[in-house]
Amino acid sequence: MATIKDIANKLGISVSAVSKGLNGASDISEELRQMVLDTAVEMGYSTKKSRKEEHRKLCIFIENMDYETPEQFGYDIILGFRQNAIKHNWDVDVVPVTPTFQLQEKYDTYLLKNGYSGAFIVGFSLHDEWMNQFKNTTMPTVLFDNHVEKNPNVCCIGTDNYEAIDLVVDHLYKLGHRKIAYLNGSLHSMVTEQRQAAYYDSLRAHDLDIDEDLTAYGYFVADSAKHHVPAFLEAGATAIACGNDLIATGVLAECKLRGLKVPEDISVVGFDDLPLAETTDPPLTTIRQDRVELGKCSYVILNSLTNHIAISKTLMRPILMERKSTTVVKK
Amino acid sequence: MATIKDIANKLGISVSAVSKGLNGASDISEELRQMVLDTAVEMGYSTKKSRKEEHRKLCIFIENMDYETPEQFGYDIILGFRQNAIKHNWDVDVVPVTPTFQLQEKYDTYLLKNGYSGAFIVGFSLHDEWMNQFKNTTMPTVLFDNHVEKNPNVCCIGTDNYEAIDLVVDHLYKLGHRKIAYLNGSLHSMVTEQRQAAYYDSLRAHDLDIDEDLTAYGYFVADSAKHHVPAFLEAGATAIACGNDLIATGVLAECKLRGLKVPEDISVVGFDDLPLAETTDPPLTTIRQDRVELGKCSYVILNSLTNHIAISKTLMRPILMERKSTTVVKK
Repeated sequence: MATIKDIANKLGISVSAVSKGLNGASDISEELRQMVLDTAVEMGYSTKKSRKEEHRKLCIFIENMDYETPEQFGYDIILGFRQNAIKHNWDVDVVPVTPTFQLQEKYDTYLLKNGYSGAFIVGFSLHDEWMNQFKNTTMPTVLFDNHVEKNPNVCCIGTDNYEAIDLVVDHLYKLGHRKIAYLNGSLHSMVTEQRQAAYYDSLRAHDLDIDEDLTAYGYFVADSAKHHVPAFLEAGATAIACGNDLIATGVLAECKLRGLKVPEDISVVGFDDLPLAETTDPPLTTIRQDRVELGKCSYVILNSLTNHIAISKTLMRPILMERKSTTVVKK
Repeated sequence: MATIKDIANKLGISVSAVSKGLNGASDISEELRQMVLDTAVEMGYSTKKSRKEEHRKLCIFIENMDYETPEQFGYDIILGFRQNAIKHNWDVDVVPVTPTFQLQEKYDTYLLKNGYSGAFIVGFSLHDEWMNQFKNTTMPTVLFDNHVEKNPNVCCIGTDNYEAIDLVVDHLYKLGHRKIAYLNGSLHSMVTEQRQAAYYDSLRAHDLDIDEDLTAYGYFVADSAKHHVPAFLEAGATAIACGNDLIATGVLAECKLRGLKVPEDISVVGFDDLPLAETTDPPLTTIRQDRVELGKCSYVILNSLTNHIAISKTLMRPILMERKSTTVVKK
């Protein structure tokens, strides 16, 4: 592990200048401070420093996801994480990020200069700049719904998407449906890719034909339904599975608009089991992701990573919540 | 949750007879006792009963694996499990099982009648009878190196085999090897299947040809080497990756017997990083599975399952331990 002296030697500056850079003193230039921090991270100084701090802090970086109120997907994840972290006296900051922010700030450096010992990453896209940096980060990092290979400082957590989609297809198949459409979420998302592959796998496992007219990407918003439901109906869909519950609400609305009754005329399935899924008309059959437990487990894993226990991946079981939006296929 | 009265009603016998059956009283027949236990399990009585017991017991069922001494693969796994379980005042029994035993005893019933609240399953084959029963078990169950779909009472734990094999192939590729043989472990094993698929995936990812003469199954014992190494050499192998360290010791011996120097003439890689890997001649480059942590995590997960937190899968990172049995390919 590098010392302050090692950093000073490498940069050819004094130990006190390095110390000032690391401690955020105001009497050195911002450029020098950045160079000290970047070099400290590069030389593996990060963990040592953050561990020694009495003020123990973890960070949740969040993007592309609502989390402010209990109705929103990210809320329970953050809640669960905090509930467990507080037991071990960690402070937890939630920092919303953007693609631009990731281009301006280096991940490891940002953690170091703000005194974070590790981070939980929620809602990132596959093409985010920090996704590249996670491949080599030396900071304990838990990725929600993303994966990075071969870095023992990083762990992936999520719900088993393959099993989830297979539960949906199997449920609909047993109700007699043979034309099952899938309105997936956004592109550039690991879970979207996994669920799309799982959809094809499960159709094949049920001896159903793959029809590209029965699937599309819906960007995780209700509004996407109106662009795709007409084509699905045209292609003969008797059931529409959705990439999340918000998309499903859009599908419900679009079906109603077209005079179709759910579930008598067409079955609809969501994904996530947000609170709204119980209150739609009809209440939504959906896949439950246990978000509080996902958050709690994420903390447990992050804590393991800070103790050099290299967990690579943890998946939770999806649960099919059968409500009123699915029924036997119309004869 | 079923009560004793429910069980009595279902079987058409008295409550006291059910009670005797559940508590192991000697004045009822073994047949009746078995029927009471099977019915209790079927009706979901198990968890309720075992939770109420003051004497908290967990069971490790082990098969096809040595575990009695620190040199053996299973030893650290059991050690890690016990180390964590003891903190929560669980007693842990280790029960070696056979295929015959699994045909004689139903899994859930065995746990119930012996007062176990859950179990950790180590070393089972894909065709073991209990593997079928795990699909529907109501008992919290953690499977080492095995997987069961869609049962929220069961979780799988292991090392990421895909990443592990890719680390091996990538290491050898970077040393210039293009004819990389793989002597896998036993058939009817989930990890053997995963590693074989990973071997093909990784060859493809490195633009290497797949040559069936360069791979075979070695049953996880050293002796298998002499049956396959000659054919690998015939096929032009410059490196031999192995399904475990024991196989690798056999490969080292077979190479020596044939006048080949390791690593100058041929590179050899193990899997597991057993204590012996440091003491072979030359010391063995291998994949480290952190067995103590695998055991510890297994307990943490089993404890989660008993609290109805449905973790589906946990994988640990494999670590490539570079020692002296691999080097740049001979010109």
